[in-house]
Amino acid sequence: MSDATYDVLGVGNAIVDIIAQADEAFLARHGMTKGGMALIDEAQAHAIYAEMGSAIEASGGSAGNTIAGVASFGGKGAFIGKVKDDEFGRIYRHDLSSLGVHFATPPASDGPATARCLVLVTDDAQRTMNTHLGACVDLTPDDIDADLVAASAITYLEGYLFDPPLAKEAFRKAATIARGAGRKVALTLSDSFCVHRYKDEFKALIRDHIDILFANESEIEALYDSRDIAAAAADLAARLDIAAITMSEKGSLIASGTERVRVPAAPIDTLVDTTGAGDLYAAGLLYGFSRHLPFAECGRLGSIAAAEVIQHYGARPQVALAELA
Amino acid sequence: MSDATYDVLGVGNAIVDIIAQADEAFLARHGMTKGGMALIDEAQAHAIYAEMGSAIEASGGSAGNTIAGVASFGGKGAFIGKVKDDEFGRIYRHDLSSLGVHFATPPASDGPATARCLVLVTDDAQRTMNTHLGACVDLTPDDIDADLVAASAITYLEGYLFDPPLAKEAFRKAATIARGAGRKVALTLSDSFCVHRYKDEFKALIRDHIDILFANESEIEALYDSRDIAAAAADLAARLDIAAITMSEKGSLIASGTERVRVPAAPIDTLVDTTGAGDLYAAGLLYGFSRHLPFAECGRLGSIAAAEVIQHYGARPQVALAELA
Repeated sequence: MSDATYDVLGVGNAIVDIIAQADEAFLARHGMTKGGMALIDEAQAHAIYAEMGSAIEASGGSAGNTIAGVASFGGKGAFIGKVKDDEFGRIYRHDLSSLGVHFATPPASDGPATARCLVLVTDDAQRTMNTHLGACVDLTPDDIDADLVAASAITYLEGYLFDPPLAKEAFRKAATIARGAGRKVALTLSDSFCVHRYKDEFKALIRDHIDILFANESEIEALYDSRDIAAAAADLAARLDIAAITMSEKGSLIASGTERVRVPAAPIDTLVDTTGAGDLYAAGLLYGFSRHLPFAECGRLGSIAAAEVIQHYGARPQVALAELA
Repeated sequence: MSDATYDVLGVGNAIVDIIAQADEAFLARHGMTKGGMALIDEAQAHAIYAEMGSAIEASGGSAGNTIAGVASFGGKGAFIGKVKDDEFGRIYRHDLSSLGVHFATPPASDGPATARCLVLVTDDAQRTMNTHLGACVDLTPDDIDADLVAASAITYLEGYLFDPPLAKEAFRKAATIARGAGRKVALTLSDSFCVHRYKDEFKALIRDHIDILFANESEIEALYDSRDIAAAAADLAARLDIAAITMSEKGSLIASGTERVRVPAAPIDTLVDTTGAGDLYAAGLLYGFSRHLPFAECGRLGSIAAAEVIQHYGARPQVALAELA
């Protein structure tokens, strides 16, 4: 992979997070499933926002968070995603570009506004997400720059991309180009409800297009209809280069061939907001993998990055991960 | 004051903060005075933002922060300030309204965008602010709702309002109405450079219109051309109901008549970002004053609120101050 211009190219929904604290009653009143990601339309977004508490805004989006993390470790990152030419779109672009990430997808000049995710954080630091996809529905296969994909050692795709219909085609195009160029393709399953929505497609993707898979326990359970993580890891390890299964405070399991590496979670002082934990774990692992580090070290970097991001609001690192590493 | 509908009405510049970390070299390269607030035009705002690191956005503005703090303590707050009818303007309105603050100033439908402050936070947690006043220049005396001022026990004015020319007139109008209605008028000197810009006017204001004054040591020094805080406190205490002088980690001094109350700073775990420390101190003191609490208790609430806000990025409380109190 030494000939690659970029270590990791992320393709994902470009979303600005609007983050506020909420109590369990708020989630119940709005029929939200705690810990999940629900898609909402513009009217729902207005209605929920109007009742949410005082918030902060921060760039988010699963793959975008991961690429920000890769760049924060010192890796060369690139991103493909669709914003509108509006205030949130400019914020989103700035927050990646300022980290040195190559982000050249042209913004939409009309149509819906830049996507936003209303993130409700409960006292237990769990996050419940409500996403209005906005301009993300305008990501099309034309936005997949074949030269960029071919120039990236790893193309990293978020399962959430299956929600906007044209983005799904863009996803497949990127995966096909990457494989054709002899590059690696990584996928995160994103969310157990997302897995339920697209289970058969995800299974076919994993069979045909994916080298590195990220999933947490509930996503694995949704994919396999089973709680047997060891069996799922064995099945995935036989098909893929790497399967990385995250288990919150229990750390993670990296499975590759017959190798199994258990990685502990990194210690934290105060758990504030778990948004982005999985995204940043993926950042550490992918950065380590791009540097040909041993799996245990890749996992350690993932744990460090996840620990940083769950100790404050917002899903992007607030300190240089290269210094923490 | 028991007949007042609102405990504190804030009048101030309505500003969304864009907060990023920066090193000393960044400040030097851009000719910024560390710890100060500089006014910048739109072109400068674009240029600085383009070079700033990855950021988060949060509602700010000195008086706005204070009113958010008053509401977070459980007080009845109101706010007058000018945003544009744009994304940041909607964010600003939401973040006050969601706390129960009455904020009915109509947004500008054209003209410059909602104000933004580019906040650079250095490793020592000091903040350096660069404010593009944007829509704040459209605040005029017509925006001062006389009934609202008369219905508020305390009208709280930020010195920064002297920067937009018409806002200065609005400021004087609010102070005059409040005094005429038998209410109290509070002022924060805001910033030592702001004091230098308007020293004679501030002196006249303090003589003629102000009951409660907030200042830090460098603002007092700028006002009196002297480092003798005790002498300044004595002079102010003779003219005003209360002078509250903040001294960072050394706590604060509340002077009223011949009474002097030294208030310790509240303990903190980790100093992250000092933005809003003075604003939140004022929130605690004003809330306590509105509840007729003893000065020591007013000061304690101020210290608690300041300690909360300096332990995270952003100048608004992230937990309910009523619970901390």
